[in-house]
Amino acid sequence: MNHPVPPAPVRRPVPAELLQALQAAFGERVSTSEAVRAHHGRDESPFDPQLPDAVVFARSTEEVQTAVKLCGQYGVPIIPYGNGSSLEGHLLAVEGGVSIDLSEMNQVLSIAAEDLTATVQAGVSRKALNEALRGTGLFFPIDPGADASIGGMSATRASGTNAVRYGTMRENVLGLTVVLADGRIVKTGTRARKSSAGYDLTRLFVGSEGTLGVITEITVRIYPQPEAVSAAICAFPSMSGAVKCVIETIQLGVPIARVEFVDSLAVRAINRHSNLTLPESPTLFFEFHGTGAGVKEQAETVQQIAADNAGSGFEWATRPEERNRLWNARHSAFFAMLQLKPGCRAVTTDVCVPISRLAECVVETEQDLKGSPLLCPIVGHVGDGNFHVAMLIDPAKPEELEEAERLNRRIVERALRMDGTCTGEHGVGLHKMGFLLDEHGADAVDVMRSVKHALDPRNLMNPGKIFSYKA
Amino acid sequence: MNHPVPPAPVRRPVPAELLQALQAAFGERVSTSEAVRAHHGRDESPFDPQLPDAVVFARSTEEVQTAVKLCGQYGVPIIPYGNGSSLEGHLLAVEGGVSIDLSEMNQVLSIAAEDLTATVQAGVSRKALNEALRGTGLFFPIDPGADASIGGMSATRASGTNAVRYGTMRENVLGLTVVLADGRIVKTGTRARKSSAGYDLTRLFVGSEGTLGVITEITVRIYPQPEAVSAAICAFPSMSGAVKCVIETIQLGVPIARVEFVDSLAVRAINRHSNLTLPESPTLFFEFHGTGAGVKEQAETVQQIAADNAGSGFEWATRPEERNRLWNARHSAFFAMLQLKPGCRAVTTDVCVPISRLAECVVETEQDLKGSPLLCPIVGHVGDGNFHVAMLIDPAKPEELEEAERLNRRIVERALRMDGTCTGEHGVGLHKMGFLLDEHGADAVDVMRSVKHALDPRNLMNPGKIFSYKA
Repeated sequence: MNHPVPPAPVRRPVPAELLQALQAAFGERVSTSEAVRAHHGRDESPFDPQLPDAVVFARSTEEVQTAVKLCGQYGVPIIPYGNGSSLEGHLLAVEGGVSIDLSEMNQVLSIAAEDLTATVQAGVSRKALNEALRGTGLFFPIDPGADASIGGMSATRASGTNAVRYGTMRENVLGLTVVLADGRIVKTGTRARKSSAGYDLTRLFVGSEGTLGVITEITVRIYPQPEAVSAAICAFPSMSGAVKCVIETIQLGVPIARVEFVDSLAVRAINRHSNLTLPESPTLFFEFHGTGAGVKEQAETVQQIAADNAGSGFEWATRPEERNRLWNARHSAFFAMLQLKPGCRAVTTDVCVPISRLAECVVETEQDLKGSPLLCPIVGHVGDGNFHVAMLIDPAKPEELEEAERLNRRIVERALRMDGTCTGEHGVGLHKMGFLLDEHGADAVDVMRSVKHALDPRNLMNPGKIFSYKA
Repeated sequence: MNHPVPPAPVRRPVPAELLQALQAAFGERVSTSEAVRAHHGRDESPFDPQLPDAVVFARSTEEVQTAVKLCGQYGVPIIPYGNGSSLEGHLLAVEGGVSIDLSEMNQVLSIAAEDLTATVQAGVSRKALNEALRGTGLFFPIDPGADASIGGMSATRASGTNAVRYGTMRENVLGLTVVLADGRIVKTGTRARKSSAGYDLTRLFVGSEGTLGVITEITVRIYPQPEAVSAAICAFPSMSGAVKCVIETIQLGVPIARVEFVDSLAVRAINRHSNLTLPESPTLFFEFHGTGAGVKEQAETVQQIAADNAGSGFEWATRPEERNRLWNARHSAFFAMLQLKPGCRAVTTDVCVPISRLAECVVETEQDLKGSPLLCPIVGHVGDGNFHVAMLIDPAKPEELEEAERLNRRIVERALRMDGTCTGEHGVGLHKMGFLLDEHGADAVDVMRSVKHALDPRNLMNPGKIFSYKA
């Protein structure tokens, strides 16, 4: 895992004529102000901001096309920007360029309730989509915690708490509208649930982190709201007991909708933040979806598995306000954890391993963390084998970042040894370019590079991310 | 939908030195006999065979690599061959070349029961995998009818009767080993259930029909066998009643495992072939997976929906032998239908539409078929919005092929108008290259061509399929 450090990226010149042309096309919706650029030159990663030279607020696919064509004319990089909630430095303008803010592309274009599909502009957030679905009896399940944009979630192949039942963005995007580096607009997929019609361009763009084009519209699957929902939490004396409970639940085929692990330290953070009094030990949050009888049956099965693994205080909540209270606590975990160390930033790991290795992976990781001076709470979408260590660092202390990176390397190395991945759902961004090589090997990354070359030979689209590429 | 007819493909020369080199490497596992070549120059499509110049029987990824490198040295096309069950001319050697038969790559390499994954060589058939899983309590659900190879199923993005519950090969392949056109071996994916690590190469190769590389090993998801399974059949006075029953079932979120539509003519064929006495009217076959109570609840819900749509004689089968008898009848439908017209071949349509348009699509199609002299039974994986018309033609009568193609065009045009796809699960092959353009537009197909160029610039891998490409 020793990679040659790629040469520091060089900012490309942004000629005044480009800015004038953008202003002619977008008027007040182009900004070069320091504040706006600073806002667009960072994300939720611990990296120092790197500002774009300008920000354009686009309102349609055609406007994105205009901006892309103009940037292309001057060889200037393009960085698509959704809600700024990415975690791996995806949005940093490492080579300068123009950030295309899609937040004003906030229209839900159509809801086909009968087909269980919805088509949205890229700037629609997952909560906004669910708001638009209110009253239809349908919902969009993918829930990465942050109220990310559907475009950003597509670009990073996001998932979150519901993926164990409903899949990730990989499974739930049916089709896309994409503006390519050369300004062409392509539509991928259809509204049919499945297709064998040629190369899977939809899934090529999903997870490409803005490096192959700007996703402007997305058709997603939506789902009937379950007839019944119940939630449960259960505390365990040990991390391994909690994780084993999850493994057995999955192996038995219980169609659990959510199962989240939270370690003692994260429970403490949640208690403080949400004013709760959960026992401060490793805890699982469950959610069950189905018919009334089905949900009861699932919960009883899981309660038994939990008891077999020394879980105690298995507590059910079926009323919506009770369930929401529990789950809001889990949802606020990220911000709750940040408050454990005021002024800190989090370096977040994101490994995902085959489920049989999860207990071993988490327990060995816990050993690592015990030997570290950093505060490192753990939460995880454990039904998928995915967990996050939030390593809280003082941004003013480089030694803390160094320590976090040391821990991160150990955790990733462990996950790869276990046939897992360095990133289950956050993407590669700037941060995991070396790990990507370790995971897939130079030849596979070279295949990715060939695809990049095929679609963006001049390296205009979000350059410097995922892998090194020279135009 | 008028496309310029692409120039007839030209066979490329296969130098004697290549054959000698293959013989040196593979000994008796290279054949140039007419019979072996004839067997490998066709599939289950109605196209006339086009023979490869030689067939190599490979036993490992490294042997595939050897064959690919040798062919590359002489600029000779390579056609991967699994079980020969594809339906759109995928295997025809339109430019000559070497067929790489993978049927001797028939090892199940590992079964990770705890992780719900299995890794197989490409020549393992789906039934062979399920045989290997016998006794583990697990199964591989994807079931396209034919006992296709897992490699071929990956290459065509196959699905079939279980897709409504378990997804298609798109959702169920976790990782691949692929030999690229230049002989490099790459591994894609990991055994983790999800990943955001770079471009989704797995899904780029799934559905690429051998045009980007030879898939040699596949890691798939496997599933716990449900605690309880029940099957049911139900006859309807009209096609639209049957289809509406399905639509309502899906929209209600019933987690049905299989729901298959069979029209009156197909029921007649099945009755004759399987010696049954099903009422010869539009019929649905259902399968329910879950706990004992869950399965009962699902079946009762569906029975009510069927009754609301004038379904009659809803018949349950819970004992395995009963269920198997019903489902074997459905599985033999393709061959049963062929027997309606001895000596015929079938031109099979494969459209898939958003579920709300399914009734309209099937009923309008039925109108088309009524006006045609051909026998055209219909079966469908209707839970996905996918159905097949098997147009039975006398291969000696070109006017019948012409009529079948006329009907096919009408059906595809209709599906595309309804936001659907020309192929839900069979792939493009030779047959739907024009339709692919109609469906995705020239720019999107051009993106596919760019990807092809990036990975196989000399057009060695299964040339002449999916879209026209000039090296």
